[in-house]
Amino acid sequence: MGGLFGAFSQTSAAVHINQERDSTLEDVYLGLFALQHRGQQSAGIAWTHEGSDRIQSLKTVGLLGGIDILQLDGINSNSAIGQVRVSGKGGFVLQNIQPLTIKYSRGHLAVAHDGNLSNTEELTEKLEKDGAIFQSECDTELLLHLMAHKPDKSPLDALLCSLPSLKGGFSMLLLLEGKLVALRDPLGFRPLVLGRRENMVYAASETCALDIIGAKIIREVEPGEAVVISENNMESIRFAPKLEDLSVCSFEYVYIARPDSVMEGKYVYAVRKELGRILARMDSVRGVNANLVSGMPDSGTIAALGYAEASGLPYDIAVSINRYVGRTFIRPTQRIRELGVRLKLNPSVQLMSGKNVVIVDDSIVRGVTLKKAMQTIRLSGPKEIHMRIASPPVRFPCRYSLDTSSADMLIASRMNIEALCLHLGADSLKHVKEQDLINAIGLPSNKMCTACFSGKYPINDNA
Amino acid sequence: MGGLFGAFSQTSAAVHINQERDSTLEDVYLGLFALQHRGQQSAGIAWTHEGSDRIQSLKTVGLLGGIDILQLDGINSNSAIGQVRVSGKGGFVLQNIQPLTIKYSRGHLAVAHDGNLSNTEELTEKLEKDGAIFQSECDTELLLHLMAHKPDKSPLDALLCSLPSLKGGFSMLLLLEGKLVALRDPLGFRPLVLGRRENMVYAASETCALDIIGAKIIREVEPGEAVVISENNMESIRFAPKLEDLSVCSFEYVYIARPDSVMEGKYVYAVRKELGRILARMDSVRGVNANLVSGMPDSGTIAALGYAEASGLPYDIAVSINRYVGRTFIRPTQRIRELGVRLKLNPSVQLMSGKNVVIVDDSIVRGVTLKKAMQTIRLSGPKEIHMRIASPPVRFPCRYSLDTSSADMLIASRMNIEALCLHLGADSLKHVKEQDLINAIGLPSNKMCTACFSGKYPINDNA
Amino acid sequence: MGGLFGAFSQTSAAVHINQERDSTLEDVYLGLFALQHRGQQSAGIAWTHEGSDRIQSLKTVGLLGGIDILQLDGINSNSAIGQVRVSGKGGFVLQNIQPLTIKYSRGHLAVAHDGNLSNTEELTEKLEKDGAIFQSECDTELLLHLMAHKPDKSPLDALLCSLPSLKGGFSMLLLLEGKLVALRDPLGFRPLVLGRRENMVYAASETCALDIIGAKIIREVEPGEAVVISENNMESIRFAPKLEDLSVCSFEYVYIARPDSVMEGKYVYAVRKELGRILARMDSVRGVNANLVSGMPDSGTIAALGYAEASGLPYDIAVSINRYVGRTFIRPTQRIRELGVRLKLNPSVQLMSGKNVVIVDDSIVRGVTLKKAMQTIRLSGPKEIHMRIASPPVRFPCRYSLDTSSADMLIASRMNIEALCLHLGADSLKHVKEQDLINAIGLPSNKMCTACFSGKYPINDNA
Amino acid sequence: MGGLFGAFSQTSAAVHINQERDSTLEDVYLGLFALQHRGQQSAGIAWTHEGSDRIQSLKTVGLLGGIDILQLDGINSNSAIGQVRVSGKGGFVLQNIQPLTIKYSRGHLAVAHDGNLSNTEELTEKLEKDGAIFQSECDTELLLHLMAHKPDKSPLDALLCSLPSLKGGFSMLLLLEGKLVALRDPLGFRPLVLGRRENMVYAASETCALDIIGAKIIREVEPGEAVVISENNMESIRFAPKLEDLSVCSFEYVYIARPDSVMEGKYVYAVRKELGRILARMDSVRGVNANLVSGMPDSGTIAALGYAEASGLPYDIAVSINRYVGRTFIRPTQRIRELGVRLKLNPSVQLMSGKNVVIVDDSIVRGVTLKKAMQTIRLSGPKEIHMRIASPPVRFPCRYSLDTSSADMLIASRMNIEALCLHLGADSLKHVKEQDLINAIGLPSNKMCTACFSGKYPINDNA
Repeated sequence: MGGLFGAFSQTSAAVHINQERDSTLEDVYLGLFALQHRGQQSAGIAWTHEGSDRIQSLKTVGLLGGIDILQLDGINSNSAIGQVRVSGKGGFVLQNIQPLTIKYSRGHLAVAHDGNLSNTEELTEKLEKDGAIFQSECDTELLLHLMAHKPDKSPLDALLCSLPSLKGGFSMLLLLEGKLVALRDPLGFRPLVLGRRENMVYAASETCALDIIGAKIIREVEPGEAVVISENNMESIRFAPKLEDLSVCSFEYVYIARPDSVMEGKYVYAVRKELGRILARMDSVRGVNANLVSGMPDSGTIAALGYAEASGLPYDIAVSINRYVGRTFIRPTQRIRELGVRLKLNPSVQLMSGKNVVIVDDSIVRGVTLKKAMQTIRLSGPKEIHMRIASPPVRFPCRYSLDTSSADMLIASRMNIEALCLHLGADSLKHVKEQDLINAIGLPSNKMCTACFSGKYPINDNA
Repeated sequence: MGGLFGAFSQTSAAVHINQERDSTLEDVYLGLFALQHRGQQSAGIAWTHEGSDRIQSLKTVGLLGGIDILQLDGINSNSAIGQVRVSGKGGFVLQNIQPLTIKYSRGHLAVAHDGNLSNTEELTEKLEKDGAIFQSECDTELLLHLMAHKPDKSPLDALLCSLPSLKGGFSMLLLLEGKLVALRDPLGFRPLVLGRRENMVYAASETCALDIIGAKIIREVEPGEAVVISENNMESIRFAPKLEDLSVCSFEYVYIARPDSVMEGKYVYAVRKELGRILARMDSVRGVNANLVSGMPDSGTIAALGYAEASGLPYDIAVSINRYVGRTFIRPTQRIRELGVRLKLNPSVQLMSGKNVVIVDDSIVRGVTLKKAMQTIRLSGPKEIHMRIASPPVRFPCRYSLDTSSADMLIASRMNIEALCLHLGADSLKHVKEQDLINAIGLPSNKMCTACFSGKYPINDNA
Repeated sequence: MGGLFGAFSQTSAAVHINQERDSTLEDVYLGLFALQHRGQQSAGIAWTHEGSDRIQSLKTVGLLGGIDILQLDGINSNSAIGQVRVSGKGGFVLQNIQPLTIKYSRGHLAVAHDGNLSNTEELTEKLEKDGAIFQSECDTELLLHLMAHKPDKSPLDALLCSLPSLKGGFSMLLLLEGKLVALRDPLGFRPLVLGRRENMVYAASETCALDIIGAKIIREVEPGEAVVISENNMESIRFAPKLEDLSVCSFEYVYIARPDSVMEGKYVYAVRKELGRILARMDSVRGVNANLVSGMPDSGTIAALGYAEASGLPYDIAVSINRYVGRTFIRPTQRIRELGVRLKLNPSVQLMSGKNVVIVDDSIVRGVTLKKAMQTIRLSGPKEIHMRIASPPVRFPCRYSLDTSSADMLIASRMNIEALCLHLGADSLKHVKEQDLINAIGLPSNKMCTACFSGKYPINDNA
Repeated sequence: MGGLFGAFSQTSAAVHINQERDSTLEDVYLGLFALQHRGQQSAGIAWTHEGSDRIQSLKTVGLLGGIDILQLDGINSNSAIGQVRVSGKGGFVLQNIQPLTIKYSRGHLAVAHDGNLSNTEELTEKLEKDGAIFQSECDTELLLHLMAHKPDKSPLDALLCSLPSLKGGFSMLLLLEGKLVALRDPLGFRPLVLGRRENMVYAASETCALDIIGAKIIREVEPGEAVVISENNMESIRFAPKLEDLSVCSFEYVYIARPDSVMEGKYVYAVRKELGRILARMDSVRGVNANLVSGMPDSGTIAALGYAEASGLPYDIAVSINRYVGRTFIRPTQRIRELGVRLKLNPSVQLMSGKNVVIVDDSIVRGVTLKKAMQTIRLSGPKEIHMRIASPPVRFPCRYSLDTSSADMLIASRMNIEALCLHLGADSLKHVKEQDLINAIGLPSNKMCTACFSGKYPINDNA
């Protein structure tokens, strides 16, 4: 999982005004800031100097704020890319911070990659046989090696020839030959959208990053398309045929994306609210005897609003968050560890004591935090807690976004719903059904990936 | 403004278990953490060593997290007090961080004070004539000087004799003679509540601080009462007569207190929601033609829920907050300054474009941030913005809580509601009326201070 | 112990140039930087705004670098004082950082104090009876209370009337009534020197602080004199009669002062070198059979040079220092603790193995570090180590500079020289005699304090 | 330029005691600490987990202290390598911090490299043609690519086959196949020495790093030799024939090495002192009319002692250093920049005013700092300054240690000695002659590299 943002200033050198050029890096910084929810473990920005092949970068462990925006001040760059990331496999090491920047026979390159390749092993084996060395733990390096093994081709051509070898999910931004390339895997697993403001062209993981800098959405990058942005042009190149069946990530709508983003034309907030309404309608068939609805903060809030609307039950903030938890580092003493989520979650005795409450959350993945949260909520004395989840049970590991979870870690793959309900200490537990999720999103079912819920992996990569 | 928390371990030395003693300081730390919303500019903790007169302290500029909880590890203390604060008059200096700790003829003292004295000038003049020197800019020092000028009395007696000289708002915690004293001014301007968990006795500004450590509320400290907590006792001493008319701060219910606290038996969340309902009822008389209701995050959220409930209009999160703003320090470049609140507030085009929206906020004080927020919201294209404020206009400076604002700084004292509506760029603007606020809180009107709204100052201190 | 630096810009407001005014604070910063060796536990700077009574300050725990020089940028101040300090009694707390700044009936004051009062208890008792409260653990507060108890006098008059009540060692800088006052106790225990550069007047603990800013020495502040520096004047006021017998601190020449300073007309470097020559002459009587001389870095280096010169033995750097020890914080693991001084000291096997070496150090106070250093040096295999100390044994606590040490902590008060030699693991141990120290310094013996060596305390304060 | 340190615990797993294993990483940390003078811009440590192929690392920008030693606590590793570095070409980026760690077809590798390859361009071109991508700016990557292109060979065999392709200076430490390899280029440009303590085997750039951990020197790694340290063995493998003519770096003796190190059997301190004596003898022919000798701190101190000894002139510390300069970060305001070295250097007026002084320094490279130092020294009023340099003029860029300097930057390549003397503001300037330097070091002239002085580059790499 990660957030990508790229910016290209198309003002030709002759007419360029300093401020506008300078905004390239600041735009990337602000865009990444709006995408911080997509990854908090590292951040990096790479840029070219106008009229030069040289690529420079700044990187930091942790939040974007670890890069001082003043360090970017006065750098005259017309194209830049950046990424915020969660760490993938293994521990986190400096070499894994993206964008990766390399030099090879045909010049300098930078690349930032959101997604996960599913044929890593096969490619690694082949490349290592040809003498490749891997310095990071990012599968992104594979693409760079594939390109480097085509020294007779220009960087762009090498890229286009190499992409068909990649399987899995990948939205990517690259700096090469003075151009910015934004591309998306053939099935469209990972999101990528184009924007514009005056002479600036942008590519971003989500529209919320365009909003912050006042840019307008142009369109999504199409699955299998590479958009090559240069001084006077924005060229669309297909590196894979247009497919009838696509694999847009349904989990983006459930959890990953910021609610104020629009993805494939669907407003994420509206999808989440509809998922809440669906849960309410599921209850209305049999009826749930509840006094109020509340969301698990912050992930379940919007679906809870939808549930309240459709059920007619009052919506209340029965569980609030201590907003200083993220801003203060408190060393984990024994006591602090025991307090756990109680330090962060403030359940309301006044609202819940003796009441039947519906608590809505977006999804259950590992279930560890949710179980602790439920224990904390119990302390405020509700009579019954009816847990409603605005997505189907997550039973299968994702292979295309972030390949960390084995099925074992997914609690819904280890126990059935009854057992899970008991495990969480809820009085009842219901999930949205897969088809209802697809309906709520509003895209055709053959355009979406629901592998984490259904196990129907779009790529037959283990065959 | 500030948050107080004190803890006393009543286990007699003979039977004490190490862990229990150790929890005194950790309890204060956690209690202050729950009170962080009451002040983010400094934090401090002072404690006694059991069986010793000596008082030690740790202080920090900024959030409580500036004090490393591990520094408190292994300190065997049975009584401790702490405070989080906003800075008062003048710039912030190290000497102003509370608790103040001093030595005088009768021993060591520590004191933490939430509130503001209104007869500072008179007392200062008198004390300076007697040779007092002032090292901090806290009016709290005045009490210490008054006590020190009674060298023939024990510290506790000197305190009780000095308190009648103080006018204004003061909740205080003191460490003296091995005891913890919790006291509240005669009119009860500032809050202070007692709690207990096993052998531990606590005093806190708000009940939410008792919740985090699993303590039960005993009762509020009464106006004019000093509660003296010692090894085997909890003694109530009146330093001022019980008054019929009190001055409980109404602004605590509007803005200061955390919504999950209960103050004078009234649940703050419920008061705020009722204030929203009142605003809706005001509109229902004439009718407001709106499509949705939203709260100004985070202060207006609860009243907005009440407004939605009473009006029947849908509630939506049309303006959300970037939760990383408080967690990342971004240096204010020219561009960042221009972006201003837009970096923090994400108004939803999808929800608001072309719509009539009701935006609810808790109060308007200086109006600076609200004006910028309104400009940001306008960018998302609403047709009409109806601003609703869950409190009366703040026209008069507070003399009893935090004496920073002159009337000039209060925008509602400079312009009438029509002008203010225009200034903010709203299509309409309404406030809750004073009597409605009193009704919503639910305390008798002769028990409350509404001076900031009405100008009716309970203390005739300028006479 | 501490270092003082004050600066006053005498350019009248009419003709002042911005840069010159701005240099007041920068001069203080640089002057303190040159005095950092006099105290590394806290640093502070206080200043007045021209034409205002208001005093502001910046303070830091640790080295001066904790105050960012850019924070002083653009402040238009014509008088400022600063101090670097070691902590005195008790643990270090924020309130103890000097300059102390207060407000009392006659206005604002700032004071910085190098030295120690010997009648603290008596004064404290008296002042506490009159109602004084003490917020710091600095005896400096006593003077402020004495002044505050003279509200009918102007601050300057109150100061001059209060000074005679103080016994002990005190060099002080004060800001009051828009003036800078530099004063020194009647016996001259602590140093203080005046300097000038163009329209700037300075007061500093040592001349090395004048050198760094290119100022010329005017003269020492005389014992019992207060020099009052104002816009157009530099007035000398005696607050105590001129005495025949003075008490200039001999330990300044031995250890405290920077070798490139000149104190009472005596060049510290030259004194230390002469002390080394004296040690060599002591050995030449009986003869010491040595191969080389080395100094214990860095304190014994200069005396070692003198020893080598007078003895004719070669001088070598047989023990060097890892210069990164002070620049790198290494957490003390068990192993690091065991390594102890070995991490810092690099004794040369090549120079010392099988040799008889003379190691010269400046003084032995607690002896803890020296013992560890000797153990480390032994590992490099010298045949004999002859320890030579460029001062008499320190047997008595200092009452006038820094009152931390009880006699118990002084190793030479607990054991005689033979035992000490054995304890340190030296093959022989010799000290400079008291009279030789006085001769080396070159001041008349009735002008010097040698109490720490002789026990002859100049003030009969326990009588 | 850089410092290398490696440690291998040969205790077999069966008998190992936890503490001993734990010391592997702590030994590397301490060894690097003793080598900090060889590079302050980055530091890194890489280690294997016993019985595993996996390699982990910790890296930091700046001093070693940026790695918290506690992070190494409890890691059970039996082999580890580390490096401190100055940055080479281009700006400093995270990817350049060594040890480099990679994965390739035959497993994981870590490598740390002190030195500079002189056939980089040729190798890069060849490797890029084969598809290599370069992620760092270290020429060390070249070796890794060479190895990776031999997938049919074991890592060790691939290493041994690849080494002959490298030209230039390289001492290297590698972790591979559970072994630690220490190797040195065929001409021995860069130093590397082996040590042992109990079951621990070490490799270090200098002997001072062995001293700090109490290890004994075994011997130098021979030029062209790879020493492979494994659980039960220490095998010597030659990857290049033993040569008659070697190229031990003479500049190590002049400046780079710590004086308490022994290099190729020569004690660095003794060499530097002898260089001072040589300078004195040069002056004795004609006579220099001087009052005293002083060293430019700290680099010229030892040679100055030699000069004083041979000339009979008194040695004095006429220029001392403010030891807090390295420990305090002072932001460079305009004034601070103007003060420049004066902030750091304290020249003594008392010692120098009106005197003829000999100032000895180790070498002149760019001459920038020295010129500023001379200006500062002039302010203390010496009559004549005779500058003596304990090495020949540096006229040629080094190609084997750190390839940063072009000839243009070397002041002695731009002007002759008379012009340089004038430029520095000295009254006379003399350098040690090349043959005298060789004599002082004491190695045969055909074993040493003096290219930076003579331009006689041992490798004909531009042919």
